[in-house]
Amino acid sequence: MTSTTEDHSAEPGQVSVAIVGTGLMGASAALASVRAGFRVVGWDLDVGRARRAADRGSFLAATSLEGAVEGADVVLIATPIPSIPELAARVLAVAPGSVVTDAGSVKADLVGAVERLAPSADLSRYVPGHPMGGSERSGPDHASASVIDGIVWVVTPTPESEVPMVERLERWIRGIGARPVRMDPARHDRLVAFVSHLPQVASTALMSLAATEEADEPEILLLAAGGFRDLTRLAASNPALWSDILLSNRAAIAEAIDLYVARLERLRADIAGERADEVAATFGQAKQARLRLAMKAQVRAGVAVLQVELPDRPGALAHLTSVLGEGDVNIEDLQIVHSPEGGRGTVHLTVAAEAAEGAGGVLSSGGFDPIRLA
Amino acid sequence: MTSTTEDHSAEPGQVSVAIVGTGLMGASAALASVRAGFRVVGWDLDVGRARRAADRGSFLAATSLEGAVEGADVVLIATPIPSIPELAARVLAVAPGSVVTDAGSVKADLVGAVERLAPSADLSRYVPGHPMGGSERSGPDHASASVIDGIVWVVTPTPESEVPMVERLERWIRGIGARPVRMDPARHDRLVAFVSHLPQVASTALMSLAATEEADEPEILLLAAGGFRDLTRLAASNPALWSDILLSNRAAIAEAIDLYVARLERLRADIAGERADEVAATFGQAKQARLRLAMKAQVRAGVAVLQVELPDRPGALAHLTSVLGEGDVNIEDLQIVHSPEGGRGTVHLTVAAEAAEGAGGVLSSGGFDPIRLA
Repeated sequence: MTSTTEDHSAEPGQVSVAIVGTGLMGASAALASVRAGFRVVGWDLDVGRARRAADRGSFLAATSLEGAVEGADVVLIATPIPSIPELAARVLAVAPGSVVTDAGSVKADLVGAVERLAPSADLSRYVPGHPMGGSERSGPDHASASVIDGIVWVVTPTPESEVPMVERLERWIRGIGARPVRMDPARHDRLVAFVSHLPQVASTALMSLAATEEADEPEILLLAAGGFRDLTRLAASNPALWSDILLSNRAAIAEAIDLYVARLERLRADIAGERADEVAATFGQAKQARLRLAMKAQVRAGVAVLQVELPDRPGALAHLTSVLGEGDVNIEDLQIVHSPEGGRGTVHLTVAAEAAEGAGGVLSSGGFDPIRLA
Repeated sequence: MTSTTEDHSAEPGQVSVAIVGTGLMGASAALASVRAGFRVVGWDLDVGRARRAADRGSFLAATSLEGAVEGADVVLIATPIPSIPELAARVLAVAPGSVVTDAGSVKADLVGAVERLAPSADLSRYVPGHPMGGSERSGPDHASASVIDGIVWVVTPTPESEVPMVERLERWIRGIGARPVRMDPARHDRLVAFVSHLPQVASTALMSLAATEEADEPEILLLAAGGFRDLTRLAASNPALWSDILLSNRAAIAEAIDLYVARLERLRADIAGERADEVAATFGQAKQARLRLAMKAQVRAGVAVLQVELPDRPGALAHLTSVLGEGDVNIEDLQIVHSPEGGRGTVHLTVAAEAAEGAGGVLSSGGFDPIRLA
């Protein structure tokens, strides 16, 4: 990352943003930009998709890529990973005043590809990134400014990225309501390999193994309780999307799988060797780490988590949710915490941070005893 | 399992049940037995605990083990695994008319220990079992007949178990509201190794690995979204309890871990070798299997699962839960289905099977479009 003169960007109304690719994430960033007062132009290879997105958010849909990005201060490329390098090189060439970023979920491979395609003079304005949000739905019809609210948006400058460009990008990210976190591309890829890609591989491998066993043992999934369902939920994700992501980050993922297998084999040896104290120690450390994680804010910043014990009687959860509804508490997320063998009883409730105190009061008045975890 | 004459048990009121160990599961089985009209006596090594359980359910707390089980038709031993074999042998000796069962979550090891301690003449009346329920809470104060409602209760007769004894046990299990599923002890242990014990090991190993990485990379968990949380939720389970379970089922678990590691290593090789089609095929098979699982009834029988799409606007979940509350729908469970990268939008709602139609109507009137999954 190289440092030159400081960039004095003006108010949002004087800053223009171009969104290339108006799927869920691109269109949501466009809507959040409109909300924050930026001038916004969108473009998509699929003209109808760009128009649908633009109609929802009252921004302009350009008819050509060049028309969209000309004069833009910030350009976000939010298209599928394979199309990003060529688009980035093209935009850098035709919009010489823009900082150009992208939303690809793996960075180092992508940066290498852009560096091979774009003249080195343009690379000072390329600042890759990764918004850590989304939804299981896709397309502009499900886009919303709220998809952006409070998410971590990783910004991964290269050694060529100029500081003012990085800062302009981060100002826009903060301006639309997300939380920029800066790190270099390789470190980003290594961290997501552990906390995003490895969980996906672990979940898919478990579901794949159970499916093979089920061919011989049709009753096996009758014995699968909440824990098995938690572990395999990710396995229902999009195969083509994940194949692209995993191959693009293959070195970091191979390392993460190796470390995971080593950890499994150590546990296996302790179990087979009847070393009860070792097994209990590993479980104890993991338990402490998981409890610390439960105390941390989620990826979405600006939220609070309340823990509520439910009395074990029919209708207890309905009572909780109706108390919250009558008290006008907006529930951001609600998780029933499962025991090792299923069952229920504890609810983790996520609400906006500024609503946490009010929610606590509503719950207490309704006969619950909430504990704020994060 | 040997077959002799048929057993014509009378109505619940003429059948007496003794519960040895009045923790959460024992006391819940006692309360469900009282509810169904069985005569119930409870005993616990901790006299105060037996009395607290008995007071909640209006059944007798015996002051001695012998006093509790004398003349009982069915005896359930629901104590920690290490104490079961000696208690089972003792009860078989002093209650010569009883079928004796237990609630240990691993069977083959336990059966071997009971067979070493009890005279072979008594073993015809020993019918081990495993109620697949529970709660993350423990102790009689959290016990409830509803803990038993609709759970799968695995019954694992040995070659010595007499058929009339097995049938008497299954009649009682059905009588208190659970669902008996019969299989031999080794098969039970092998199946739970895959769908209960392996998920626990996989979750603990992942959390343990991430905690080690966190020591070097304090920001790593900032990038952990809903998927990581799903995968590691089980890692917060009780270390001592799990150490006992895993060691007791060590052969089956070692086999399950080996098969899991092999599956992970195959995926690793396909990813590192850039075999996109192979990776996508494995993910595609796992996805299909997970979608089939989502269509199956949960371990708890007698429930229905409704899928509801939430519009992406603040308060949508609160609106859903208040519609359900106002419509007097009892929510058994509520899961927010996570996308690969967090987010929200789809809710899986579990209600009693007989309430599914009513819940569907309430949701439709409230502007939702529910789909019944199971």
